[in-house]
Amino acid sequence: MSGKTTIYDIAKELNITAATVSRALNNNPKISKATRKLVLETAAKMNYEQNKLALALKSGKSYNIGVIVPRIDSNFFASIIRGIEEELYPKGYHVIICQTHDQEDLEIGNINSLLNAQVDGILMSISNAKLEDNQSFQKLLKKNIPLIFFDRKKDIKGVSSVTIDDFKGAYDATKHLIDQGYKRIAHLSNDRLLLIFKNRYLGYKQAIIDNGLEFDESLVIETQSKVHEGKKTTKILLDMERPPDAIFSSSDFTALGAIQEIKERGLRIPEDIGIIGFSNEPFTKFMELSITSVDQSPTEMGRITAQVFLEEVNNGKKIKSEKHVVLSPELMVRKSSRREN
Amino acid sequence: MSGKTTIYDIAKELNITAATVSRALNNNPKISKATRKLVLETAAKMNYEQNKLALALKSGKSYNIGVIVPRIDSNFFASIIRGIEEELYPKGYHVIICQTHDQEDLEIGNINSLLNAQVDGILMSISNAKLEDNQSFQKLLKKNIPLIFFDRKKDIKGVSSVTIDDFKGAYDATKHLIDQGYKRIAHLSNDRLLLIFKNRYLGYKQAIIDNGLEFDESLVIETQSKVHEGKKTTKILLDMERPPDAIFSSSDFTALGAIQEIKERGLRIPEDIGIIGFSNEPFTKFMELSITSVDQSPTEMGRITAQVFLEEVNNGKKIKSEKHVVLSPELMVRKSSRREN
Repeated sequence: MSGKTTIYDIAKELNITAATVSRALNNNPKISKATRKLVLETAAKMNYEQNKLALALKSGKSYNIGVIVPRIDSNFFASIIRGIEEELYPKGYHVIICQTHDQEDLEIGNINSLLNAQVDGILMSISNAKLEDNQSFQKLLKKNIPLIFFDRKKDIKGVSSVTIDDFKGAYDATKHLIDQGYKRIAHLSNDRLLLIFKNRYLGYKQAIIDNGLEFDESLVIETQSKVHEGKKTTKILLDMERPPDAIFSSSDFTALGAIQEIKERGLRIPEDIGIIGFSNEPFTKFMELSITSVDQSPTEMGRITAQVFLEEVNNGKKIKSEKHVVLSPELMVRKSSRREN
Repeated sequence: MSGKTTIYDIAKELNITAATVSRALNNNPKISKATRKLVLETAAKMNYEQNKLALALKSGKSYNIGVIVPRIDSNFFASIIRGIEEELYPKGYHVIICQTHDQEDLEIGNINSLLNAQVDGILMSISNAKLEDNQSFQKLLKKNIPLIFFDRKKDIKGVSSVTIDDFKGAYDATKHLIDQGYKRIAHLSNDRLLLIFKNRYLGYKQAIIDNGLEFDESLVIETQSKVHEGKKTTKILLDMERPPDAIFSSSDFTALGAIQEIKERGLRIPEDIGIIGFSNEPFTKFMELSITSVDQSPTEMGRITAQVFLEEVNNGKKIKSEKHVVLSPELMVRKSSRREN
């Protein structure tokens, strides 16, 4: 075995949970004498050294971490979760997931459910920015349960976050469309009370202005990140008196709907209309007409979120500090926006 | 008032039932926002401290349900979870999800984590059929915690299941390829220790035999449900001395990889080679070359799984019976297998 033995290795060896190993090592009376003896013997055999983390985690810790996301059926959130798991499993944690479907009551309910499930921390991407009171979040903070936001955040004192530079992602995408010769670029936006969508809108707007194009607010439409919504919204755009010649969408799913509508009308992509999505969902690459999109390195985002959590746990209650990590997005240029020269 | 405030005190104060108070405190969507607000305000005024864990220990209920799936990033499993949620939320339950990535140790770890999280039941699709002992499952059964399998099951006494007729799905798909004139049909299989993949293999084989074609075992290759694995396996098939003229894949992801390899070789689909996948993932429909696939009505599967759980909970400990629901799959014929006549 390479590297240090962790409680996870011992747990695996004995086919018991990391929590049981931890309790046994910490003389928790809940653990039988026989189990404790077995754990201690195995720990000795495997040259386990009880490290700071193990010492910090006294009995009462569940080794369960709660992750809350708007939806699990997007590659973006699934990849973030994968990154979180990859970072936390080797440390003996288990990840349990809840989804909110962008519903406020489910978001509050999920936080309560995870609290009842005795999680050691909650890593989440918020669904609802309108949530007036931060009662649920405050409850976590009062209990000294680490709370970390990823991607969709809210500014709350004492809460760390890991996000990407959405402004830059949108700016680069729009600039690329301008460089390809598109003149009238529409933007399919989303609920701009959420910072990520607000920043994508602002990045788009700034690129338009910086490059001397006319900024036309009527070309910006707020919609939802769903294929059929993208189709519906694109209908509106194409029926305009002066329709756009390109669309920058804040979501790949909306971009896919836009493509369906454009094709049904017999228009050509990218010759007549250019399209860019956001998130680099796998289908954008797999399609014959591959879709230009903005990659957000979600696995990395998950890993870093988990690392920030571990730092907070290791710091214990001594240091209360916020950490804000901002990752840089990358434009993946594909067929849907590349005009042949 | 002596002692701690209970939900009964709040109910009495507001002249409503304790059940309503409980639902309001648990964010049950059935309760109106006005009522919820009133209950929360009254609870705060009466210094009610919600200790759901204590309540759970007393009533034996946490209203948390654990769902374990191999992966969350497939539309199939995400839709099953959606169905489970749609059925259980209105009953006041919250759903917490774990994924196993098809790893045995994670499967065992997840079951233990959910047990520690005090779930009222576990609904799961197993990852590892090789798991020799059923120790983790027996632990659940001994604690009288309902366990229900969906899609990927194992035969364990006392455990109900909801599956689809995989044999029929595979038989219909293969029969359709034969009807379209394909003569040498390969099968991309998967770990056949899992019943679903074994039954898809058997359905394929039976259709070949029933229709007087030669059954050639060398055309059956076991692979994993991943795009790059499908590509790799298809390479092997196309390099054979007598390559196949059609592929029935037990996974849409593998089918997608097969298509990539076939196209790279300049072969035409469906003219030269026909392709069918399994699961009806959304991308099969969205692609320009849409992929024929087998629909498993996953949302329905999730709903029924939740209903079976509720039945078991309502029956209590009185009646111990197994229930096995088998749904019928539906072949969705698309471009990848439909030869123009």
